[in-house]
Amino acid sequence: MDSEKIGQMIKEYGYRVDELLPKFLEKSNGYEWSKFLNEPIWYHMNTGGKRIRPALCLLTTELLGEDPKKAMNFALAVEIMHNYLLLHDDVMDGDKFRRGEPTVWVKYGVPNAINCGDYMIAKAYEIILKSDLPEDTIQKLLNAFTLTLLRTGEGQALDVNLRADEHFTEENYMELAKGKTGHYLVCPIVGGAIIAGAPEEVIEKLWELGGNIGTAFQIRDDVIDLTEGKGRPPGCDIREGKPGILYAHALRNANPEEKKKLIEIMKKPRDETTDEDIRWVKKLYEKYGTIEYAQKKAEELKKEAMRILDELPFSKKDVVKQIAEYVISRKT
Amino acid sequence: MDSEKIGQMIKEYGYRVDELLPKFLEKSNGYEWSKFLNEPIWYHMNTGGKRIRPALCLLTTELLGEDPKKAMNFALAVEIMHNYLLLHDDVMDGDKFRRGEPTVWVKYGVPNAINCGDYMIAKAYEIILKSDLPEDTIQKLLNAFTLTLLRTGEGQALDVNLRADEHFTEENYMELAKGKTGHYLVCPIVGGAIIAGAPEEVIEKLWELGGNIGTAFQIRDDVIDLTEGKGRPPGCDIREGKPGILYAHALRNANPEEKKKLIEIMKKPRDETTDEDIRWVKKLYEKYGTIEYAQKKAEELKKEAMRILDELPFSKKDVVKQIAEYVISRKT
Repeated sequence: MDSEKIGQMIKEYGYRVDELLPKFLEKSNGYEWSKFLNEPIWYHMNTGGKRIRPALCLLTTELLGEDPKKAMNFALAVEIMHNYLLLHDDVMDGDKFRRGEPTVWVKYGVPNAINCGDYMIAKAYEIILKSDLPEDTIQKLLNAFTLTLLRTGEGQALDVNLRADEHFTEENYMELAKGKTGHYLVCPIVGGAIIAGAPEEVIEKLWELGGNIGTAFQIRDDVIDLTEGKGRPPGCDIREGKPGILYAHALRNANPEEKKKLIEIMKKPRDETTDEDIRWVKKLYEKYGTIEYAQKKAEELKKEAMRILDELPFSKKDVVKQIAEYVISRKT
Repeated sequence: MDSEKIGQMIKEYGYRVDELLPKFLEKSNGYEWSKFLNEPIWYHMNTGGKRIRPALCLLTTELLGEDPKKAMNFALAVEIMHNYLLLHDDVMDGDKFRRGEPTVWVKYGVPNAINCGDYMIAKAYEIILKSDLPEDTIQKLLNAFTLTLLRTGEGQALDVNLRADEHFTEENYMELAKGKTGHYLVCPIVGGAIIAGAPEEVIEKLWELGGNIGTAFQIRDDVIDLTEGKGRPPGCDIREGKPGILYAHALRNANPEEKKKLIEIMKKPRDETTDEDIRWVKKLYEKYGTIEYAQKKAEELKKEAMRILDELPFSKKDVVKQIAEYVISRKT
C-alpha cells in the first residue's frame, strides 16, 4: 500500500468520524445548560480540521486485521482529547485566532473556555468507558489515554515555563517535544493496536516510536512556523517566545551580543515584537544554519523511528511504518 | 454512632490521606519538569483543608463492612479531583485568594494554573486505574468519577453563564446546585459503597440523595457567604454576581425599582462593588425574608434526603444517614 492510498483511507475515515461525533458529543440535549457547553464546544470542534487522529486509529485497527467499528469510541475520544488540548492551549498561549476564526476564550470568555475543555475530557473518558469491548481492553485503552494526558501535561509544563529561557538547551527541547507531542501523536495508533490485540511489546515499541515521530513532527512544525506560518503569519513562535529547537540551536551558536539580542526579542510581549525583530531572528538562524540543522535532526529521528520498527518482532510492520511516515510528513 | 464519633473518624482518616497523598501525587520525581508541575500543585494542595472527601470515602467503605484500604486509591483520586476543581474555579472566578494565600493563577500565572489542573485530573484517573481491585469494580468507580465530572461541568456552565442574569429563577438555581454540588459531594460516598459491594439500586439512591444533600449544602454555603463570609469578607457572591438562591428569591419578590438596582449591583465588576452596595442588597434580602426562605428550603431538602434514605432497601442506612447529616451540617 502506498502513502497515497493511506491518505485516501484516512480521508474516508475522517468523514465517518465527522458524521458520528455529534451523536457522542451531543450538539444539544434540550437542557438549559446544554447551549452553554455545546455552543462553544462545537464552535471549536468545527474549526478542528480533518479528524486525522481518529482516522489513524480506525485505519490501524483495520490494517491490523480487526473490525474498525470496534475502535470507533476510542477514535472519537482521541479527537475530543485533541480538541480539548487545543482549546486549553489557546488560553494558555493567549492565541486569539485559530484557522482564521476567534478562539473560544476570545468569543466566549476564559471561564467558558476552561470549563468546556474540562467537560470535553470527562466526555472523552465517558465515551471510552461506554465502548462495546471486553473490560480488560477498555482498561488498557484507558491506561494509554491517561498516560498520553500525563506526558502531554509534562511537556506543556516545560513549554509554558521555559519561554524565552536563557539557558534553554536542545536536551530540554527533546524532552519537551517527546512529552508534549510524542504520546499524543501515537495514542490513536496505540489504541488501534490494543483493540486489534497487538502484544504488549508492540505497544511498548509504538510508544517509543512516538518519541521519535513526535519530535520529528514537532521540529517540522517549528520550521514551518518560521518559513510558511501555520495558518497565521510566519514567526509566531518568536512572538510567543516559544522554546523551540531553532531557538536552542541559535542560543548555543550565537556570539554573546547576538545571544543577548535574541533573548531580548524572545522575551518581548507578543504585541511588542516587530516584523523587524522577526526578520532579525530569521537572519540569525540563517547565519548559523539553524533551519538545516533542525531539518537534519528531524530526518535522523525519522530514520531512528524506522530502524526501531524494523527490529520489531511483528508481521505487519510495513503497515505501521507507512502510517508513521504519513504522520511525520503531513502538515498540522 | 453519633455525629461526634463520625467527625472524629473523619479526622483520623483525613490524617492518613494526608500522609499518603505525596506518594501518589509525587512531590518531586527528579525530572526537570517536575518542579513546574509539583510546586504549584502542592502549593495548592497545601491550602486544601482537611481531606474530608477522601475520609468520607474510607469511612463509608469501613462502615459498610469492607476494608477501607481497598478504597484508598479512589479516596485519593477524589481529593485530587476536588483540588483540581478548586484550582480551575479560582481562574474562572478570578479569585485572588484562597484561605488567605494568593491563588495558583496569581502566583504562577494562568497557563500554569490551567495546565496543573489538567495534569491533576489525568493523575486522578491514573490512580483509580492503578487500584488493586477487580476490573469491574474499577470500571464502576471510573463511571462514577466521570459522571461526577460531567455533572459538575454542567452546573459550572450555568454558574459561569448566569452571572447577574436578569431572568435567573429558583428552578435554574436548583438545576445549577444539583449539577455543580450534587454529584461532587456524594461521589466519595458512592465510591465507598461501590467498593463495599453495595447493590446498584443503593448506588442509584445515593446519587439521588446527592441532589438533595448537595443543594442543601450549597444553599447553606450561599447563606454563610453573606452572613459570615467563607474565609473572606462576607458578600463575595454579590461582588461576583453569582447566581445563588438568595438572588433568585429577591429577584422574584422585589418591586421593579429594587429589582433594577439589584441587577445593577450584581452586574458591576467585582472591584467596583462597594460595601454600601453589599449592605443595600443584604437589607433587601432582609426585607423579603430571603435568608429565612433559603434556610427553610435547605431544611426541606435535608428532610427529603432522609426520607429517601428511609425508603432504601438497605440494612445499614442509619450509617449512611449519619454520614449524610455530617456532610450537610459541616462548613466548607
